[in-house]
Amino acid sequence: MKTENTVWHQQQINKVQRANIKKQRPCLLWYTGLSGSGKSTVANAVDALLFERQCHTYLLDGDNVRHGLNGDLSFSDQDRIENIRRISEVSKLFVDAGLIVSTAFISPFASDRKMAREKLATGEFLEVYIDTPISVCEQRDPKGLYKKARAGEIKDFTGIDSDYDIPSAPEIHIKTAELTIVECAQQIVQFLEDNHYISTGS
Amino acid sequence: MKTENTVWHQQQINKVQRANIKKQRPCLLWYTGLSGSGKSTVANAVDALLFERQCHTYLLDGDNVRHGLNGDLSFSDQDRIENIRRISEVSKLFVDAGLIVSTAFISPFASDRKMAREKLATGEFLEVYIDTPISVCEQRDPKGLYKKARAGEIKDFTGIDSDYDIPSAPEIHIKTAELTIVECAQQIVQFLEDNHYISTGS
Repeated sequence: MKTENTVWHQQQINKVQRANIKKQRPCLLWYTGLSGSGKSTVANAVDALLFERQCHTYLLDGDNVRHGLNGDLSFSDQDRIENIRRISEVSKLFVDAGLIVSTAFISPFASDRKMAREKLATGEFLEVYIDTPISVCEQRDPKGLYKKARAGEIKDFTGIDSDYDIPSAPEIHIKTAELTIVECAQQIVQFLEDNHYISTGS
Repeated sequence: MKTENTVWHQQQINKVQRANIKKQRPCLLWYTGLSGSGKSTVANAVDALLFERQCHTYLLDGDNVRHGLNGDLSFSDQDRIENIRRISEVSKLFVDAGLIVSTAFISPFASDRKMAREKLATGEFLEVYIDTPISVCEQRDPKGLYKKARAGEIKDFTGIDSDYDIPSAPEIHIKTAELTIVECAQQIVQFLEDNHYISTGS
């Protein structure tokens, strides 16, 4: 390039600046729970409440990740780990961009969730346990997956023939069977407010 | 969950809403050019100018992608394609989130850039050709890579023993040898303004 009139100082807009213009403290809400527990429903309801407050959010879920970034992955053990690894890495980029990002995946294994947590800085990873009894999930069965798993048509189905490691110390614990969707979402937004991720609602 | 007092309509905050609260039209600035051409430098300068206007941006480059999301990839042909595929998919998610996202990678092959372009909607993919003569790049050689390539220590180095497909119709064409860094950045910001990705500067 031509010689600058003044010495050019490489400028890099940083994480703090990106967060500041969004007037929020970026974090990752990592929703975990059984199939049919309500992860996506609650995550979408939270995003709607945050949008009302002009917060800058994004939700990663099966709809936008499975057929895109992770479209090359199977359901093998190895690919399942790679699936969570990529979701963690992308979430980290979104947090770096200053957003409040949510992920809604079963993520049944504590080891995978630990891997995700360790990629982020202290206070950035918020585990949200969507705690719904399997009997309730199975009764809802919105995609007919429990029925297929019981019939042996799907193998390694979480809660049927594959384990779900109950989070031992989630930052947020939501008992969906006792609350309405709006109440679930409000509990999460209240946590974000109490812990200064977002400013106090008007 | 408990029965809602009113019927719950699944709410999903959409791309348009996310972009609207950011007061910008999201897009992907895909910087392409030789090693040492100034892609990262110009991209960072553009982000700094956009930040002054309170725009919401993010930059994907080797620093935050190579050791994270794409840390499992080698420099084989297959992995090089996968590298660009993942960067495209992640960029698409950032555009969906309402951001103006930039990618700064050599991306030497027209086929790879075409793949990236096709993942996005019309008008969202903006190819930015950082056009710097190889003699200038080689003279700068900020990382000593040209020297190593000439000595045969690095194989398949773009411009030396691997091709660079010159963009045939880039949305933005920056001739860095004729401009200062600030002038390069201003040209790009002007394009974004002229094409209504960002509002007119005050």
